Amino acid sequence: MTDLHVPLDRQQGGLAAQLAAELRGSIRDGRLAPGTRLPASRDLAADLAVSRGVVVEAYEQLVAEGFLVSRVGKGTHVAAAVSAPRQAPPPPREDTVCAPFYGHRPTSPDLSGFPRERWLASVRHVLSTLPSDAFDYGDPGGVPELRQELAGYLKRVRAASVRPENLIIVGGVAQGLSLSLHVLGVERLAIEDPSSSRQFPLLRRAGATPVPVPCDDEGLDVKALAASGAEAVLLTPAHHYPTGVVLSPGRRAELIEWGGIVLEDDYDAEFRFDRDPVGCLQGLAPDRVILSGSVSKSLAPGLRLGWVAAPEDLASAVRQARGELDLGSPVIEQYALAHFLRTGGYDRHLRRTRREYRRRRDALVTALNEQLPEIRVRGIEAGLHVYLELPGDGDEAAAAAAAQALGLAAEPVGPMRFRPGPPAIVVGFARLPAHRAAGAVRELKVRMSGQRID
Amino acid sequence: MTDLHVPLDRQQGGLAAQLAAELRGSIRDGRLAPGTRLPASRDLAADLAVSRGVVVEAYEQLVAEGFLVSRVGKGTHVAAAVSAPRQAPPPPREDTVCAPFYGHRPTSPDLSGFPRERWLASVRHVLSTLPSDAFDYGDPGGVPELRQELAGYLKRVRAASVRPENLIIVGGVAQGLSLSLHVLGVERLAIEDPSSSRQFPLLRRAGATPVPVPCDDEGLDVKALAASGAEAVLLTPAHHYPTGVVLSPGRRAELIEWGGIVLEDDYDAEFRFDRDPVGCLQGLAPDRVILSGSVSKSLAPGLRLGWVAAPEDLASAVRQARGELDLGSPVIEQYALAHFLRTGGYDRHLRRTRREYRRRRDALVTALNEQLPEIRVRGIEAGLHVYLELPGDGDEAAAAAAAQALGLAAEPVGPMRFRPGPPAIVVGFARLPAHRAAGAVRELKVRMSGQRID
Repeated sequence: MTDLHVPLDRQQGGLAAQLAAELRGSIRDGRLAPGTRLPASRDLAADLAVSRGVVVEAYEQLVAEGFLVSRVGKGTHVAAAVSAPRQAPPPPREDTVCAPFYGHRPTSPDLSGFPRERWLASVRHVLSTLPSDAFDYGDPGGVPELRQELAGYLKRVRAASVRPENLIIVGGVAQGLSLSLHVLGVERLAIEDPSSSRQFPLLRRAGATPVPVPCDDEGLDVKALAASGAEAVLLTPAHHYPTGVVLSPGRRAELIEWGGIVLEDDYDAEFRFDRDPVGCLQGLAPDRVILSGSVSKSLAPGLRLGWVAAPEDLASAVRQARGELDLGSPVIEQYALAHFLRTGGYDRHLRRTRREYRRRRDALVTALNEQLPEIRVRGIEAGLHVYLELPGDGDEAAAAAAAQALGLAAEPVGPMRFRPGPPAIVVGFARLPAHRAAGAVRELKVRMSGQRID
Repeated sequence: MTDLHVPLDRQQGGLAAQLAAELRGSIRDGRLAPGTRLPASRDLAADLAVSRGVVVEAYEQLVAEGFLVSRVGKGTHVAAAVSAPRQAPPPPREDTVCAPFYGHRPTSPDLSGFPRERWLASVRHVLSTLPSDAFDYGDPGGVPELRQELAGYLKRVRAASVRPENLIIVGGVAQGLSLSLHVLGVERLAIEDPSSSRQFPLLRRAGATPVPVPCDDEGLDVKALAASGAEAVLLTPAHHYPTGVVLSPGRRAELIEWGGIVLEDDYDAEFRFDRDPVGCLQGLAPDRVILSGSVSKSLAPGLRLGWVAAPEDLASAVRQARGELDLGSPVIEQYALAHFLRTGGYDRHLRRTRREYRRRRDALVTALNEQLPEIRVRGIEAGLHVYLELPGDGDEAAAAAAAQALGLAAEPVGPMRFRPGPPAIVVGFARLPAHRAAGAVRELKVRMSGQRID
């Protein structure tokens, strides 16, 4: 028999629940050890000055949950099976493993430009017009309205060859790739060298071994691809990450002739500043190219909304896989994006942001050319990042750190390479207003030279 | 050289883009065969009465995309690599494979009660107060504010033993299970017999072989579990699906003593009508139980918002897996749910719906007892479905069809069983108002007897 000190708040009501919570806590932290006999309900009720019913209800609750055991003639005991008191859990550790997954990237858009009011208006429209059934378990391939709108958009803007049946709505390019690789069972996957090092763990998690294939000024070397023995290739033909080159017409033709499966990552094709963007590869060979895209650069990564366009049998397999993994993407924001597309809000937003990003890129590139001529800006006028080739003795880590210290998202290219290449960094310019570019580059020059002198 | 008929809409502007789109379409559908030589830009411009610049721009676009090839002195040809005209794709087939994944289920809530205005108010709050950075790539484990609120909620309402570090936000119980099984590498997974047949493909997709373990009136037979050789068990202790029994205190104790890993599916614990719900198993043995839950029954399945509570090392592995699969759940609705929880809106919604569902269940059970006494309603007063045991010669398929014809979500239990059992169906009552229960059961009786007579 044990003596119990149980503080109860009589103003609060719910005395039985309070008592149950107190007893549960005492059992968990070891104050009430396994096997301990509790006072008879009548005695505890008298001690606590509550009705006996309160104690009986609390005991019954804890018996049902397995914290207490009650046997006729033997009283009520703390169950033997209850876990021994746990040590205080360790403090949350520095989780460096996940750090690369989140936060601002060189390819992130300027999120101060996220169209909050227009997005809210779309959500309001959806919530005030959708029939109730639309909030039930949805098609794991995505809501039909969004697939319809996206098929039209991708045809119009990316020269894709898609119908709604070819489209699966996913949580962004990462999930599009994961699912495609999973469904295809790709073992040897060719990737561009260099390419985003963030993708390596994703590819391995999906069961694929990355096989690096060199890239030059025309993009991926297709002869080297053919010699690599890879079954499929993942590439960024409209704007290679990180170098910023575009896959040349000749290489596009070679790639289609190659005949393997092509995973096309169309991550920032909305932003080409000098001309219309090159249409996607998928439009050229819809039976062999799987196109992945998202609104992560055009609206916000946090929306986790993207798509996969695939031949119909593969699209059907991806849809089924999603139905067996997570039942699909949330529906309200799918409908909201469909509305945003249908009403022209998405196109207007893109036109506005494209103009602004072009100004920002031009200002940054001009300032770099003027003040840091030893740094070579490479790649086409597109996207949200620039690829900066440093002089032969340049220190990638120091240059990236200098840019980061200015608040810019910047990364060394070395970790993205399988074969050695010239020192280079990528720098995101989405958040750097045009009028601050010259000052930022001046500051960058000071920091970089300072680090070299030190 | 070929003769081209190209309809251009001069009111529209963007003549080069129009011409490029027309040519692309002609190449795709085979009207322009591979190798065909196109007219010189000057000739086509004259034919179409447009400036030569328009034709040059369109040709250049298609050369960049790989549809055309242009060589000095040889003119412009349709590329050889372009896919041969595809046959018209087959009409979308009846996709019976995916059908079980979506639509109304016996466990779906009444979605006409989805709190649209309050949810919109939460989204509005989020969009008007969040800093821009919150829309960037987010923590794959979920936004900290929601993990904080949920930890408090689960502790308070489910007697769970969790801290924010133990919680991973996922897209519902399905994804919680998929990820947990994937990370644990479970090969032989014990499941309740009977149990939801919707889960079988999910478990297999995650690499686990289901090992059925019988259930009786006390829930899972733990001695049979111990003899099964399974490494882990998946169960619904608060309200077994489909039979509706609750795991008895004795079995809870045995299960914890068993010592394997327990995956606890807490799918509808918000709705217990006769008393406080039994606390979750996870609270009893937080080092061995992985708890999955969601807002699918309390708010809407279409939100795809749920959680996994796991020991810290496992939670960390699940978080990393998510970062390598899909980068996490969308952030705006995570913040909206956090706000809904913090302001008490979630609790108020639950109280209101719990009262209403209780009335609906009571009315249905009363009507069944009065009008169809040969049907036995089993299970505790909880959840959104009833388990109806039919007479020994009852026809599950006919009974389920009769209920479905009345607009009720109903399913035969046979396909959920590994070992034979009495004929039974589950029927969802969430959408059946109390005042219509008697009429619905009368109609059900007619249909069932009608089908038996036929």
